[in-house]
Amino acid sequence: MDSDVRDPIRRAPWQNLQVLIQADSRHVLPSYIGSLTASELALAVSRLSQEEHTRLLNLLSPQDAAELIDQIEDVQAVDLIEDLPASEAAAIVDEMYSDAQADLLGDLKDEEAEAILEAMPDETAEEVRRLMQYRDDTAGGMMLTEFVSYPADYSVQHVIDDLRNRHDEYAGYDVQYLYVSDGPKLSGVLRLRDVLMALPGQPLTEIMSADPVRVDVHTPLEEMRDLFETYTYLGLPVINEEGKLVGVVRAADVQEKLAEKTESEFRKTSGIVGGEELRSMPVLTRSSRRLSWLSVNVVLNILAASVIVLYQDTIEKAITLAVFLPIISDMSGCSGNQAVAVSIRELALGLVRPREILRVLFKEASVGLMNGLALGTLLAIATQLWQGNPYLGLVVGTALAANTVLAACLGGVIPLALRALKADPALASGPMLTTVTDMCGFFLLLSLAQFVLPKLV
Amino acid sequence: MDSDVRDPIRRAPWQNLQVLIQADSRHVLPSYIGSLTASELALAVSRLSQEEHTRLLNLLSPQDAAELIDQIEDVQAVDLIEDLPASEAAAIVDEMYSDAQADLLGDLKDEEAEAILEAMPDETAEEVRRLMQYRDDTAGGMMLTEFVSYPADYSVQHVIDDLRNRHDEYAGYDVQYLYVSDGPKLSGVLRLRDVLMALPGQPLTEIMSADPVRVDVHTPLEEMRDLFETYTYLGLPVINEEGKLVGVVRAADVQEKLAEKTESEFRKTSGIVGGEELRSMPVLTRSSRRLSWLSVNVVLNILAASVIVLYQDTIEKAITLAVFLPIISDMSGCSGNQAVAVSIRELALGLVRPREILRVLFKEASVGLMNGLALGTLLAIATQLWQGNPYLGLVVGTALAANTVLAACLGGVIPLALRALKADPALASGPMLTTVTDMCGFFLLLSLAQFVLPKLV
Repeated sequence: MDSDVRDPIRRAPWQNLQVLIQADSRHVLPSYIGSLTASELALAVSRLSQEEHTRLLNLLSPQDAAELIDQIEDVQAVDLIEDLPASEAAAIVDEMYSDAQADLLGDLKDEEAEAILEAMPDETAEEVRRLMQYRDDTAGGMMLTEFVSYPADYSVQHVIDDLRNRHDEYAGYDVQYLYVSDGPKLSGVLRLRDVLMALPGQPLTEIMSADPVRVDVHTPLEEMRDLFETYTYLGLPVINEEGKLVGVVRAADVQEKLAEKTESEFRKTSGIVGGEELRSMPVLTRSSRRLSWLSVNVVLNILAASVIVLYQDTIEKAITLAVFLPIISDMSGCSGNQAVAVSIRELALGLVRPREILRVLFKEASVGLMNGLALGTLLAIATQLWQGNPYLGLVVGTALAANTVLAACLGGVIPLALRALKADPALASGPMLTTVTDMCGFFLLLSLAQFVLPKLV
Repeated sequence: MDSDVRDPIRRAPWQNLQVLIQADSRHVLPSYIGSLTASELALAVSRLSQEEHTRLLNLLSPQDAAELIDQIEDVQAVDLIEDLPASEAAAIVDEMYSDAQADLLGDLKDEEAEAILEAMPDETAEEVRRLMQYRDDTAGGMMLTEFVSYPADYSVQHVIDDLRNRHDEYAGYDVQYLYVSDGPKLSGVLRLRDVLMALPGQPLTEIMSADPVRVDVHTPLEEMRDLFETYTYLGLPVINEEGKLVGVVRAADVQEKLAEKTESEFRKTSGIVGGEELRSMPVLTRSSRRLSWLSVNVVLNILAASVIVLYQDTIEKAITLAVFLPIISDMSGCSGNQAVAVSIRELALGLVRPREILRVLFKEASVGLMNGLALGTLLAIATQLWQGNPYLGLVVGTALAANTVLAACLGGVIPLALRALKADPALASGPMLTTVTDMCGFFLLLSLAQFVLPKLV
């Protein structure tokens, strides 16, 4: 029994939000929203209607709305923003952090993003446009452009004075390090504690780490992950083509993006391919995204099953074979998918290179052989006990054993081949694998059966 | 063509490492390892033999070995440590960060961990034992116990003096915030920049954030994720049952653990269930872990296929039905797995509660109905074109349509039910789903076929 239902006064956050929206309570809403955690907010937003979303955003100041947008899931943020008039959306986006602005606008449809950019102050719009040029899994796409940098001829006292004077301005920054520039070029990094422990008169060049580890705007996610694992930094400076400091990438953001990437691979291998799906989305969006994947699969399935048609005579004579077709198909899929998962993981960790197909083939063949023998024997014994025909057991066991070896090898190799061809292994490996293993499995089972047909009847 | 092969002098890092190990070059090894990135190290370790691993660790000082262990993948670290004598392992573990010590020992077999703890200095061993009591996805299991805390009656000058005096000691700490304690209890948090901007004579109580956001040792991962999304902190203080500050959890570590958790769910739904698998592991380990999952599946598959046995007479009269058994089985699995993936995701985000089964059922039924109709029609038309029998098309289309609705509903609901029963949705949802959808799919197809059997022959 739901505690919110038993106690009529303690309502769920989203119900309270609904009441506040209906009452147009412009004054209570911001503080109530401020009292909710990110996940309570995400849940609440997922339970409100589209009309309530619009009214909610209208009742909030752009700043409060930006804070709300920042806390909910990305797909929810896109939903909310896309229903607003461009000018209102622009006012909200203007209040967000630079990296979040580019991410959000990048997720919108091009013409919607353009309309919002048109409505934003020219200077901000230009910066966002610049950030949007970078892929969202590169340093340029993930960096914060809010940072604090000082000339190389400053002393510690200059820095402390500046930090005091511009306290309010920096309050919204996420200051982890201070940077030192020599002319336009990045020349050093200061940890706050080094500034804290230095003497006021010391020049920055004396206490900074000179020639610091840096990334450029095009550095890919995996390389940043690698750097953050190699060194224990909280953030890395990002430089542009001219060596000028243009932003900072934070370790936590890199970890978050990696989690998102794994999540997206997980989703794609499960057949959710058109982007993230939440059940609060419209039924039509959800079903059409799922259907795109399913209809490809139905065609591939028919293709695979056409092998069976060639052997209808054989099946006609030994009907029991029909029982084993789905077993062979399903088990080969299982064995192959295990190998796919290991390959996708090793590719992500850099433990296998796309060109090392032979190495993977050898490694998978060994595992496939052992498991093929075990599974084949298991199925052969089960079949013998079940159907009382040792020849049938031999046929299905041999077919499963051979097809398990094939499935493991293919499952291991397909993701590497797809990556080498610059295709997405998470998306295409599964359907490719099962189509081929189904065809081979049906062929193996039915052609073996043909050999000993008199014994099976 | 591999650049390492073309140029005989530029060898891959693991080949260089091999040469250095064989030459026993105790002096070059540490600096060479220091020049490699984390992923180069992980790759190198995955390519060395067990004997080379042992020789490598023997050639390094415990401190250098600890740094190596810190950078490679967790499963690799376990492999390396478990082959060492307890005293050597203890010397290395002693050099690691507190949270990494507990993680590593927690991943070892109990008796191995115990032997290493016995060989460690009593005080450190006691602390590690304490940390190992906490689950590794709670604040206690993830916290660093290295932090800097001051009494509430200190002034800013006291803090600066202490930071200067104990500079070397704190060098190994990851200082993001300073903490203030009133007696044994945590009373405030200081950001370094606040200390930087304060006057030397100011008392800490004046510049600290009093009553700061904190977690206790048992706070689960999801709640910490939520806090880090709600507030933009780099780390959160962890208190014990008595309100005493015992550690710090970093935002980046929470994000990293979340990525690991998603990765582990991905792996489990793909049938890699006994822990992470890398192809550098022994074949026997890899094949037996995969086999445990596969043999459960073979049994479930036989169970599902037993439905077909009941209808052998029907199939005998209309052999073409055998072609459609694997199609129905595979397509229902696809539809159901999509719903499973969405449920696992929504559970992780807190957007659905385990008890909201009816809500999910309704949402999935709508999508299942639309996609069932579409897929059923598609398959019916394809069948009609292929086999030229409209009744057969009608039977297979109807069976697929109905089973798609069922698969979507079941796929959506099973993860919630498993979570409500405290079981692991990622592990059990897939096999449970496909067994039930297979049975129902075979039953639907074959019993429908029985109705119109004369038209199918």
